[in-house]
Amino acid sequence: MKVTIKDIAKEANVSVSTVSLVLNHKPCRVSENTRKKIEEIALKYQYTVNQAARSLVTKKSNILGLIIPDIENLFFSSLSKNIEEYCRAIGYSLIIVNTNDHKNDDISLLKILLSRGVDGLFICVSNESYDDKEVEETLNKLPVPYVMVDRVYQDLDCNKVYFDNELGSFLAIQHLVKNGHRKIGCIASPESSRNGSSRVTGYIKAMEHFNCPIKECYIEDGDYRYQGGYDAGLRLIHQDVTAVFVCNDMMVLGFIKCLNEKHLRIPQDYSIISYDNILYPFTQGSEITSIEQNVAKLAITSCDVLLNQINNPKIEKQNICLSPVLIKKESVKHIK
Amino acid sequence: MKVTIKDIAKEANVSVSTVSLVLNHKPCRVSENTRKKIEEIALKYQYTVNQAARSLVTKKSNILGLIIPDIENLFFSSLSKNIEEYCRAIGYSLIIVNTNDHKNDDISLLKILLSRGVDGLFICVSNESYDDKEVEETLNKLPVPYVMVDRVYQDLDCNKVYFDNELGSFLAIQHLVKNGHRKIGCIASPESSRNGSSRVTGYIKAMEHFNCPIKECYIEDGDYRYQGGYDAGLRLIHQDVTAVFVCNDMMVLGFIKCLNEKHLRIPQDYSIISYDNILYPFTQGSEITSIEQNVAKLAITSCDVLLNQINNPKIEKQNICLSPVLIKKESVKHIK
Repeated sequence: MKVTIKDIAKEANVSVSTVSLVLNHKPCRVSENTRKKIEEIALKYQYTVNQAARSLVTKKSNILGLIIPDIENLFFSSLSKNIEEYCRAIGYSLIIVNTNDHKNDDISLLKILLSRGVDGLFICVSNESYDDKEVEETLNKLPVPYVMVDRVYQDLDCNKVYFDNELGSFLAIQHLVKNGHRKIGCIASPESSRNGSSRVTGYIKAMEHFNCPIKECYIEDGDYRYQGGYDAGLRLIHQDVTAVFVCNDMMVLGFIKCLNEKHLRIPQDYSIISYDNILYPFTQGSEITSIEQNVAKLAITSCDVLLNQINNPKIEKQNICLSPVLIKKESVKHIK
Repeated sequence: MKVTIKDIAKEANVSVSTVSLVLNHKPCRVSENTRKKIEEIALKYQYTVNQAARSLVTKKSNILGLIIPDIENLFFSSLSKNIEEYCRAIGYSLIIVNTNDHKNDDISLLKILLSRGVDGLFICVSNESYDDKEVEETLNKLPVPYVMVDRVYQDLDCNKVYFDNELGSFLAIQHLVKNGHRKIGCIASPESSRNGSSRVTGYIKAMEHFNCPIKECYIEDGDYRYQGGYDAGLRLIHQDVTAVFVCNDMMVLGFIKCLNEKHLRIPQDYSIISYDNILYPFTQGSEITSIEQNVAKLAITSCDVLLNQINNPKIEKQNICLSPVLIKKESVKHIK
């Protein structure tokens, strides 16, 4: 016979509501012993809270969804972990799904998560979905609260938490200029993503701001990838630059390989600043000055924003732009 | 007024059951156009399948749970991605949770996932949970089908899918012996995990098998970490070994850093074999022979086993041991 919550309450010698609170992980003034006793009895009879029945009553599933482009990317795995831990701490479970940066998956996964009855969504759209009207309209009609994370539609009226990419580039160029550099190359990925193109825009604006020469041949496309950084490096070392701003860590690895092969040294031959600061310990001793985006802060802020919206549906949408910071290492040389 | 499935069927001019099949992502003989039309109408009225109500009828949530020690670890992020994609393809969603390798989280997360009404579980226990009776008993009483993945209790009667770690070590030592090496060091992590200790056992058995000298000073603990590999390297280079078998990729990075600092070269001064083969492109050109564990195969096999059990509860439990393979690179030198 199936055991009910009443049977457990009777055996534990407590009220039904106490059992309910304990098994639903809600705050409840009972001793640790009583809590343990209730859980043990529930386990003994293989009793589990019927979340489906509960959801029908509470109209809440206590499940949130997270859509990310690629969980194998270090940035997104860290983001997922931070969001998941925050959610769990406040009693929510998280369904994590990957789009592999495909627009069609953005839309189909949204539908699936909605059919799961999620209470809210963290959405980091695929690069393919930038400027896509279909995805934008789908988001605009979403029946649950959501927050766009890291990759956002600026024109959409929704919650957004992201980093200021132009500021990141500015900090990098400013640091190089302070160290005497004026001929500064840039390995970028303007086509790959909105964030990628913002970093190039930030580079150009900063170069203008400091009256440094801006040449087409100073800006190389590295496609955000290892091989792209390597290939871009092969072209860039024929220019007269003294420093290179590389717009992500994977491209820096390729660029370093290129310099190693040509017996060029960091920072004696080239000063380098990277973006992301997630390379340690992969650079084998050559530590690279980098623009760091605090992923934990991105995650926590996104959680705060979403939970606020869930708990107060009428609250105003938030648009939060976080600032990256410069982390100094030995890869920038002072020149005259 | 809330739109019902009947309203959608009427507007799309199809039957209620067709709408139900389409919106529940079930196989259904309708044209792509009709499917799209139904989905658009549903989206227009913000209609979502009430999964909670559905679960009460079907007794299935179509949600599976995945417990992993650390989503930031490349091995587990790849495992998660592969399992998630498989599940999605067959209509299941996946809730991914991290234990941070803490035993208490193994138990509490199991309870949470059960309360979510998961139909089944992929479980990769924390290292702390090895040989832990409490966790073993909890698993033994689980009311839903599950499969232990990668880290398994050999004595527990349950589904298991994992790699043969002793075989991996054997393949490494065999390859070094074939290339003339007999004095072979090992940077291991016997205390950190069952898999870690199996790799050391495999090293010792293989050394015995090939009549190579086994000395205590040949085996160094690198704690599975970068710094540990570096420190172990500092000690090992004072021994007379010509080759080193390093039991994971993070330790190899530390070991390479140590060799670089001492101006020792691979493979001229030391032949190296690593474990995992996930380092590219982080080793900056020095490609390392490695024992590869096919994570995609681990994921797919685990999914097959779990789904089989869910669909046929009476089916016999499966114990599947997968074989790693040796991937040859230039890091092993032939000596006389």
